[in-house]
Amino acid sequence: MISKSQIKLITGLRQKKYRDSSGLFVAEGPKVISELLEAGFQADYFFSTKVDPSEGHEATAISEIDLKKISALKTPNTSLAVFRKPTYPELRQSGLILALDAIRDPGNLGTIIRLCDWFGVEQIVCSADTADCFNPKVIQATMGSIARVAVHYVGLDSFLRNTQLTTIGAVMDGASVYQTELPSEGILVMGNEANGISETINEALNLRITIPRFGAVQETESLNVATATAILLNEFRRSTGK
Amino acid sequence: MISKSQIKLITGLRQKKYRDSSGLFVAEGPKVISELLEAGFQADYFFSTKVDPSEGHEATAISEIDLKKISALKTPNTSLAVFRKPTYPELRQSGLILALDAIRDPGNLGTIIRLCDWFGVEQIVCSADTADCFNPKVIQATMGSIARVAVHYVGLDSFLRNTQLTTIGAVMDGASVYQTELPSEGILVMGNEANGISETINEALNLRITIPRFGAVQETESLNVATATAILLNEFRRSTGK
Repeated sequence: MISKSQIKLITGLRQKKYRDSSGLFVAEGPKVISELLEAGFQADYFFSTKVDPSEGHEATAISEIDLKKISALKTPNTSLAVFRKPTYPELRQSGLILALDAIRDPGNLGTIIRLCDWFGVEQIVCSADTADCFNPKVIQATMGSIARVAVHYVGLDSFLRNTQLTTIGAVMDGASVYQTELPSEGILVMGNEANGISETINEALNLRITIPRFGAVQETESLNVATATAILLNEFRRSTGK
Repeated sequence: MISKSQIKLITGLRQKKYRDSSGLFVAEGPKVISELLEAGFQADYFFSTKVDPSEGHEATAISEIDLKKISALKTPNTSLAVFRKPTYPELRQSGLILALDAIRDPGNLGTIIRLCDWFGVEQIVCSADTADCFNPKVIQATMGSIARVAVHYVGLDSFLRNTQLTTIGAVMDGASVYQTELPSEGILVMGNEANGISETINEALNLRITIPRFGAVQETESLNVATATAILLNEFRRSTGK
């Protein structure tokens, strides 16, 4: 049985302002929820239409009708949990850091967080106008990687101007990444889906790199930002070797 | 004004069997349509709610109500055209070819076709159970790249057994792609979203490669197939230089 005030709390968490004020976020589906639980996230509420005591986690039974009331999905996926946002360790200015300048699409942000998890990038810094990493769509796309990658929201412009690390931006007219010696530590900056890296941040870059295009026809759309991030994180890791 | 038989034809083209029997496919939205027209595709029908004679293409005016009847999109995007499928040149056994083994998601296939366009890969061979490249969702995701990349459906197993080219498969337990000398010509094989490369095709491979994983936690989901394709096409192109 779910109370009216719980329904109000949970549906309210679709909005960033309530996630911010409460320090809570929602995850849906058994796979994402179990990854978050295993990673040590604390669930304030955990509802499931299929409560299996043998699984160890203490889910509260919920009817499909009630689950539909609190789910943001068209087809609710058997369970929904409310978690406390993690307290990430303070940002360390070392290693490879990914910086995101106004990435707006939650699916792209989720894919990028997963990529960081794969490539062992433990820290992301985002401009304040990047999508919220606790947006339910991001949580669905990260598949639990949010547990292992710390996402910090900062004044990106001043952060990049004040760092001691090398700043490397992905742009359309930079040096070929194949011909560039990438540093083993640094900050890779990826820009907005439509407009790329903003002008003030572009001015703060130490290096500007580009993924070469091989197609004969030059009107090919630019690569999707998540795809470009995948290629460039791979380039950084191959250059430091494994 | 659109006739009942036109509505029936166009909505029928959502099904592969009618696309196959008629040799036609549908594209929606001004951007994709204009890319296809510029690439020389022939439009049998071209309807638009915003006919602009200055644009040169001869669209037929259609009301928003009628467009909604023929559109497969929740929110129709001002125009819809019916094109003749291209006759691709015969498959050449040279250069870098991408082979897809049972890629089922139309969005993934569309993204992969765009990637081939970026990296100058002009030929894709697909197993018969790969998604149809003229599926409307694929056409939306390719953004016109379908005009420049030839997609062939073949018996992939026998094709790979009979080719003279080196066959290189992306697998979870292969050699690190960073330590593998990639051939300048060859066939890169990417497998199904859930199951990877099928067993019979795995046996036909000359080389098995893997994108190294760096994250500390090994339970990270495998990379999405479109992301992995991006990284590997980039690896092939960087090894042949530019």
